[in-house]
Amino acid sequence: MLTAAYTGDSTIAIAEAEPQAPDAGQVQIRVSYVGLCGTDLHILHGSMDARVQTPLVFGHEMSGTIAAVGAGVDGWDVGDAVTVMPLDWDGTCPACLAGNQHICQNLDFIGIDSPGALQALWNVPAATLVALPAGIALDAAALVEPVAVAVHDVRRSEVAPGEKAVVIGGGPIGVLIATVARAFGAEVAVIELDPNRRAQIEALGFATLDPRETDQVAWMEEWTAGAGADVVFEVSGAAAAVLGATALAKVRGTIVVVAIHPTPREIDLQRVFWRELRLLGARVYQRTDFERAVELVADGTIPSAVLISKIVPLSETRAAFDDLQGGRAMKVLVDVQAGQPA
Amino acid sequence: MLTAAYTGDSTIAIAEAEPQAPDAGQVQIRVSYVGLCGTDLHILHGSMDARVQTPLVFGHEMSGTIAAVGAGVDGWDVGDAVTVMPLDWDGTCPACLAGNQHICQNLDFIGIDSPGALQALWNVPAATLVALPAGIALDAAALVEPVAVAVHDVRRSEVAPGEKAVVIGGGPIGVLIATVARAFGAEVAVIELDPNRRAQIEALGFATLDPRETDQVAWMEEWTAGAGADVVFEVSGAAAAVLGATALAKVRGTIVVVAIHPTPREIDLQRVFWRELRLLGARVYQRTDFERAVELVADGTIPSAVLISKIVPLSETRAAFDDLQGGRAMKVLVDVQAGQPA
Ligand SMILES: [Zn+2]
Ligand SMILES: [Zn+2]
Repeated sequence: MLTAAYTGDSTIAIAEAEPQAPDAGQVQIRVSYVGLCGTDLHILHGSMDARVQTPLVFGHEMSGTIAAVGAGVDGWDVGDAVTVMPLDWDGTCPACLAGNQHICQNLDFIGIDSPGALQALWNVPAATLVALPAGIALDAAALVEPVAVAVHDVRRSEVAPGEKAVVIGGGPIGVLIATVARAFGAEVAVIELDPNRRAQIEALGFATLDPRETDQVAWMEEWTAGAGADVVFEVSGAAAAVLGATALAKVRGTIVVVAIHPTPREIDLQRVFWRELRLLGARVYQRTDFERAVELVADGTIPSAVLISKIVPLSETRAAFDDLQGGRAMKVLVDVQAGQPA
Repeated sequence: MLTAAYTGDSTIAIAEAEPQAPDAGQVQIRVSYVGLCGTDLHILHGSMDARVQTPLVFGHEMSGTIAAVGAGVDGWDVGDAVTVMPLDWDGTCPACLAGNQHICQNLDFIGIDSPGALQALWNVPAATLVALPAGIALDAAALVEPVAVAVHDVRRSEVAPGEKAVVIGGGPIGVLIATVARAFGAEVAVIELDPNRRAQIEALGFATLDPRETDQVAWMEEWTAGAGADVVFEVSGAAAAVLGATALAKVRGTIVVVAIHPTPREIDLQRVFWRELRLLGARVYQRTDFERAVELVADGTIPSAVLISKIVPLSETRAAFDDLQGGRAMKVLVDVQAGQPA
């Protein structure tokens, strides 16, 4: 079979490998589609070289069908459509013991810390499987993982029906958060610099804002009748966005930190204090988020057709990253079976 | 009667004034004791000149007895021992309408935005009165306001019995937060640079830490068996403390921002994200905090005798601030009736 692996130095190798039978407790998945995301880009650009071991077959947003079931695995059959919640926790650290397994202090993130989905046949622990309903389109189903991120972020925000939320940063995760927050009953606006993205987001029915052209604080005051947003999602990763986020939130409002900020950021703590704001970190997902995400993809709440800009065969994985990098694509999927040797 | 007023330029004037009868809806209090706090110091040093109107009779931590009752005020009698929750809200802004009157968007903080307690006879809205139990020492009762701040901070943290909390900054508010958190059932440690303060805090039964001598992260790991603190109270106002605070908290732990940070501070958002931390602003108090604070002062939970370093007559208010400023005193009270003309 063919695999796509990060081999260091911004390089992806498409290499032949011998499929392995699943170990006890594992399931082998015939991978259908793999979505490429910002974390994969970070890996490709070497930002995570201290963490990853090369060659790394990466990819963690996927859909597929079960090809083989290892010993001791119950409840799964060959042919079942599945996706994977790519978290493997130790179960013994203080975070796990407190019930926060998803952010285990020794978490193995499958596809980063161990081999991922960019291979024709992929073995994973059966405990990571999430069932897909019959009839779901497997390309759309590759969006379940990023949708689960968005569900987790929105659940963590505790946004309530009728409340107003603003998403700073209208990339793929920002759009998914906006979509999920709306599905949870919120009114949502998106702050985004790129005019093409703004047009896409407006076509999905969201208000958008270019903070270079509109005074975002004045806009927020007007939108919320002087109150401020109930929830602000910081998805941009930009220092200026963090510094400005506190001015957008209402008294006792919530700011959810979704983006990766590799260096410390300045925050207006005077405003945090003055308005008794709440700033929450939100990372990955829990099983309930995956289950909700499956529903949202299956029922069409997630506009998969708009979000999936392109589907490429495994051999073109490297070029697909260039599209992502350039902001020319919202989401690119790799069709892992296309071009596999018979 | 004599009053103490900030007149600008680091100056306090002790001036003669004519007492006014209470308006309708007001009560006149014969002020017994007034505590001086960090906010008063900020006023004295001109940091709040853009906000305050001089001359400002300041002071908002107090105890006293009712001297006269204005028209339309029910439920209060001359001679009743009282303290004042010095907040006057508009009742109409979005924060008030959402039930957060204590941080009203147009809050009048009595003693900052309008005349305070450093006068023999002080008129306040009857709605701000908080009853003191018979027999409470009126000097200790002047601590109720800062204790209410601490109760609010601890309630906001949602610290639970048996949990571990660390207080960064062992000044008067830090010590009160530690004391209240312990009264709520938490195990508490205090990080403080000053050795004299550390000795005082240890004498009150708390673990202390000098972060220049001990690696505070390693210490925390050991104290919490690798988990991190359930709650971190940032009371120091120091930039380095904020930057270090995120490394002290457990997965899903809480950091409460109590201190004033006049300029934006760097925060390790990567850690906020990674551990799904929660950062909360906490400001002033609600009536329930005052009521709990009265109980904690009355039942001796608050070590008033240790905390009250000195009691001075009104004429020595200026010198008392110098003691506070120099860190030579935890809490200085002004005996407002001492030296008043007969
Ligand atoms: Zn764990
Ligand atoms: Zn108000």
